[in-house]
Amino acid sequence: MSKALSIFDTTLRDGTQGEGISLSADDKLKIATKLDQLGVHYIEGGIPGSNTKDIEFFRRVKDLGLRAKVTAFGSTRRKDSVAAQDANLNRIIDSGVYAATLVGKSWDFHVHTALQTSLEENLAMIFDSISYLKQKGLEVIFDAEHFFDGYKHNPEYALSVMKKAEEAGADWLVMCDTNGGTLPHEVHGIVSVLSERVKQAMLGIHTHNDCELAVANSLSAVQAGAQQIQGTINGYGERCGNANLCSIIPTLQLKMGYEVLETDKLAQLTNTARYISEIANVHMPNNQPYVGTSAFAHKGGIHVSAILRDSRTYEHVAPETVGNKQRVLVSELAGQSNIVSKAQDMGIAFDPSHEDTKQVMSKVKDLEHQGYQFEAADASLELLLREANGEITELFVFESFKMLVEKTAGRPVVSEAFVKIKIDGASVYTAAEGNGPVNALDNALRKALINYYPRLQDIHLSDYKVRVLDEMDATASKVRVLIETRDLTSSWNTVGVSSNVIEASWEALVDSIRYTLLGQTKLQGQHEVASERGGIVNH
Amino acid sequence: MSKALSIFDTTLRDGTQGEGISLSADDKLKIATKLDQLGVHYIEGGIPGSNTKDIEFFRRVKDLGLRAKVTAFGSTRRKDSVAAQDANLNRIIDSGVYAATLVGKSWDFHVHTALQTSLEENLAMIFDSISYLKQKGLEVIFDAEHFFDGYKHNPEYALSVMKKAEEAGADWLVMCDTNGGTLPHEVHGIVSVLSERVKQAMLGIHTHNDCELAVANSLSAVQAGAQQIQGTINGYGERCGNANLCSIIPTLQLKMGYEVLETDKLAQLTNTARYISEIANVHMPNNQPYVGTSAFAHKGGIHVSAILRDSRTYEHVAPETVGNKQRVLVSELAGQSNIVSKAQDMGIAFDPSHEDTKQVMSKVKDLEHQGYQFEAADASLELLLREANGEITELFVFESFKMLVEKTAGRPVVSEAFVKIKIDGASVYTAAEGNGPVNALDNALRKALINYYPRLQDIHLSDYKVRVLDEMDATASKVRVLIETRDLTSSWNTVGVSSNVIEASWEALVDSIRYTLLGQTKLQGQHEVASERGGIVNH
Repeated sequence: MSKALSIFDTTLRDGTQGEGISLSADDKLKIATKLDQLGVHYIEGGIPGSNTKDIEFFRRVKDLGLRAKVTAFGSTRRKDSVAAQDANLNRIIDSGVYAATLVGKSWDFHVHTALQTSLEENLAMIFDSISYLKQKGLEVIFDAEHFFDGYKHNPEYALSVMKKAEEAGADWLVMCDTNGGTLPHEVHGIVSVLSERVKQAMLGIHTHNDCELAVANSLSAVQAGAQQIQGTINGYGERCGNANLCSIIPTLQLKMGYEVLETDKLAQLTNTARYISEIANVHMPNNQPYVGTSAFAHKGGIHVSAILRDSRTYEHVAPETVGNKQRVLVSELAGQSNIVSKAQDMGIAFDPSHEDTKQVMSKVKDLEHQGYQFEAADASLELLLREANGEITELFVFESFKMLVEKTAGRPVVSEAFVKIKIDGASVYTAAEGNGPVNALDNALRKALINYYPRLQDIHLSDYKVRVLDEMDATASKVRVLIETRDLTSSWNTVGVSSNVIEASWEALVDSIRYTLLGQTKLQGQHEVASERGGIVNH
Repeated sequence: MSKALSIFDTTLRDGTQGEGISLSADDKLKIATKLDQLGVHYIEGGIPGSNTKDIEFFRRVKDLGLRAKVTAFGSTRRKDSVAAQDANLNRIIDSGVYAATLVGKSWDFHVHTALQTSLEENLAMIFDSISYLKQKGLEVIFDAEHFFDGYKHNPEYALSVMKKAEEAGADWLVMCDTNGGTLPHEVHGIVSVLSERVKQAMLGIHTHNDCELAVANSLSAVQAGAQQIQGTINGYGERCGNANLCSIIPTLQLKMGYEVLETDKLAQLTNTARYISEIANVHMPNNQPYVGTSAFAHKGGIHVSAILRDSRTYEHVAPETVGNKQRVLVSELAGQSNIVSKAQDMGIAFDPSHEDTKQVMSKVKDLEHQGYQFEAADASLELLLREANGEITELFVFESFKMLVEKTAGRPVVSEAFVKIKIDGASVYTAAEGNGPVNALDNALRKALINYYPRLQDIHLSDYKVRVLDEMDATASKVRVLIETRDLTSSWNTVGVSSNVIEASWEALVDSIRYTLLGQTKLQGQHEVASERGGIVNH
C-alpha cells in the first residue's frame, strides 16, 4: 500500500467548536494561508449553510490562490426533503469550493433519537446528498458520524451507511469517533473490517481526544488502511479537542515512514503551531509535544549533562526537524545560535565569540525571559540588534506621557493623551483624543512627529494583541502587547511588556514608529504583504 | 490473568521535573493526602539522596498514616563502588520508606555515554543496589531507564538488565519509555517479550508524552501484561510530561474492565485533579480529558439539542462517574436550547415559547454578536438573565470614573483611578493607585464599597484576558475583556466589551463585584472550588 497520506485540516471548522475559540473571517484567511504554506492537503473552512462569517471566508479565500483544496462542511439533506432544494447543500455549492465534507449519521441510536427518522430514510438522505454534490462536480468527503459507536451497536447498519455513501460516489469515507471514546485496538479492528469492504473510495479517520487517545487512534487507523487523517492544529476542537495534527504529522513522517508533508516543510511545524495559537488567541501549553516551548527543555541536572554530551540521550527526535529547539533550563547555552542566525538574516554580522555579541545575546535572552516574544515581533528585535550594532535608532527623545480615560454615566467614554518629546533639541507637547487609550496615545505621538516625518500618515496600526503573562496574580501580572503596523505594501510587528497595559502598549507603539521612520529600504523585519497575498495590495 | 492493577503515582517526584512546577514539603504532604484519599497504591515522594525538602517530606509523611505505600527514588550505586557505602541508597533506607524505586540504565548507549562505564559494571551496579535494599527489608521497584530504546538497539542487553534485577530480588520490573518516543504497537511487542521471560517479578510501565502517546502506550503495556502503571496527576513531568493518570485510570476502569480504584473513588477524580493543580499552581487546561472544565462542555447547537434529549448522543461516559459535570455553552453557535437550559441550571424558568423569553434570547444573541463571549463568562450571563427575570441586581449606582496613567522618562509608570458611585442615596468618591489601570480601578471601586460590603476583602481578581475583536482598524476595534475572580472556595467569570479597553475592563469588573455581592447561595455561575479542595480550608 502506498505510504502517501492526506492531511485534512479542520482547524477552521471543528476547531472553532472548542470552548474559548472564535475566529473572524480575517483570522481564518490568515490561518488558511499559513496552513497552505505548511502543505496540508485539505483545509476545511467552515459551514456556509449556517454561518455568515464563513460565507465571507469562502468568497475571499479564492483570491489567495491556495494549493490546498478548500472544503465546505454541511449535513446531509433534511429528512423527507429533496437534496436539490436543500438550502445548506446549495450554499455549499454556491460557496465555490472544490470539495465538500458531508456529515451523516451511522449510529442507529442517533438516527432514532437525534434525527427522529427511519434507518432507510437516513440512507436515502446520505445517498441523495452525496450524489447531488457529485453531479455538481464537487469532490465529496463523507464523514460518518459516530462510526465506531455505530459499528459496535449495529455493525450491519454502520457498514450499510458506508456502502450507500460509496455507491453515491463519495471520494472519501471518513470514520469519525465523534464521542472520543473508542480505544486504539478497537479502531484497528473496525478500520480493518471496512478496509476489506470498500471498493474504490478511500478511507479517512477523524478522532476526538476524550480519552487522550485521539492521536493513537489516528495512527492505529492509518496502520489499518486509512489514508486521510482529519485533525486540527494544536488539537483545538469540541470538548477535549480533535486529533492534534502537530503530534500526528511528525510521528507519521519521522517514525513510521509515511510521506505526509513535502521535504523541509516539517521544519515549519513549530512556527505554524505558534502562529495559529496567536491568531486564535489561545495559550499554547508549554508542554505540547513536538512544538511546545518545553518539548525539548531539559531540567534535571543528570539529563542536562547527558544531552550536552549527546542529544540523543534524552531527545527522541532532533528538535530542528520540527522547527523547535533544545532548551537547557539550568544554563542559557541554548539559543545563541538562533540569535546569531537571525542577525545574519538582517545583514548584521555578529561574531559569536566577541564579548559585545555575548552581551547582546544576554540582553535578548533576558528580555525573552521577561516575556518579550521576539519570535512574533521581528521589528522590535531588529531595532534592538541594530542598536547593539552601533547604528543610530533614536530619532526623538521621550520625555513623558499622560493618558486619561473618563466615563460619566449616560455619556460616551472619553480618552485623551498628552505626549511630550524632544526632537532636534526642541520640546514638543501634544494633546489628542482617541477612541481608546492606545488610539489616543498613537494620535498624540503622531501629532508630535508628523511635521518632521510626513511619511507617518501612510502607516496605521492594523492589529493589537494583549496577553497576560503570569497567572499567579492577574492584576499585578506582566502584560505583553503585540502591535502590527501596515503601510501600503508591508507590515511589521513590535512588542512591549510591562505590568501596566498602557505602558506596554506605549512601548510597542514607539518601536513601531521608530521602525517606520528608520526607512523601509534598510530594514528586514517586515513581511512582504504583496507576496503573501499573491499580488493583492488593498487591505 | 488478574484484572487488578496497581497505580504508582510519581506526581511528587517525576512530576516536579516539569518546567514551572516546584513543590514545598507542605505542598507535597497535602497532595499525598489527597492522592491517598483517591486510593492510588504507591506514592513516590521524592529523592532523599539529593533533596533536603524531600528528606523533610519523608520524615513528616509517617504521621499521616497513609494507606498507600510511600516510596523514595534514587539511582543505582555509583560505578566502581560498594552499595552499602552509597550515600543515596543509605538515605533511601534512612527515610524509613516501605518501598524504594531504583533507576538503572538498560540502554547500552547510555551505559557508555552517560555513565561512561562497562556493560558488566552496570549489571553489577543494578544487582548490588537492589539486593542491598532487599536485605534491608524494602520492597524494590526497578525502573529500567530507556528500556524500549535499549531493547530496540540491543535487545539482549536490555533483557539481561531485567534478568539481573529479578535475580537480585526486585519486586517490580518497570519498563520506562524515558524519551517518550516509542509507539503503542512497539510497546505491546516488547512488553510481550519480557512478559514471557519474567518468573516471579511483576511488570510495570512508565511512559512519557513526547509523541502524545503516553496514555496509549500505558494501555498497550497493560494489555500485554503490565500490572503497574506509573504516571502523574494531570500528566505533569519533564518536557511533555509523564503519562496522565487522570486519563488512564477512568479508561482502564470504565472501558477495559480493570479493577483500579475502589468503588466510588473514581468519582473523586475531577476534584483530586483540580485540587492538585491549585496546590501546584499550574493552570489546568480546560480541555483536559475526563476532568477538564470543557471535557463535557457542548457548544454546537446541534450537539446541544441532541444531548438535552439523551446525554449518550455526545458523551462517551457519564460525567458524574469521574466527578465532572455536563455544561451547555452559550455562544454564537448556540441555539435556543442552550440558553433555556442554562437558565434552568440557574433556577430561572424561561418558557421557550413566551415572548419575553424570545426577547431575552434575542438580546443575548445580539450581545454575543457584539463580542460578549458568555460561554467564558457565566457570571455575566447570569446577571443578565436574572435582570431579565425581574430580579434586582443594582446594588449601587455608577456615576463616573477617571483613570490616569502617567509615565515620565526615568521614573516608574503611575496609575491612578477616581471612582464616584451612589450607594443608599449617598455619593461616594474615592481615589486609589494601582500597578496598572485595571488594578487602580479595582482598588478605587472596592474602597467605595468596602464599608457597605466587607465581604469584598475575600475576593481577588485571578485572571484577566484581553482580545481585540475586529482587525480592520485595530486601535478603533472593539476589545473584549474577560475577568476571573476568586474567593476561598469558588471562582467566576465576567466579561466586558467596548472599543475602549479601560471601559471594557470596567464593565467586567463591575459585573464581577455585583455578582459577588448578590450572595453566593443564590447564584449558579460559579465553579465549586470547595468540593474541589476536599475539605482543605487553608490556602
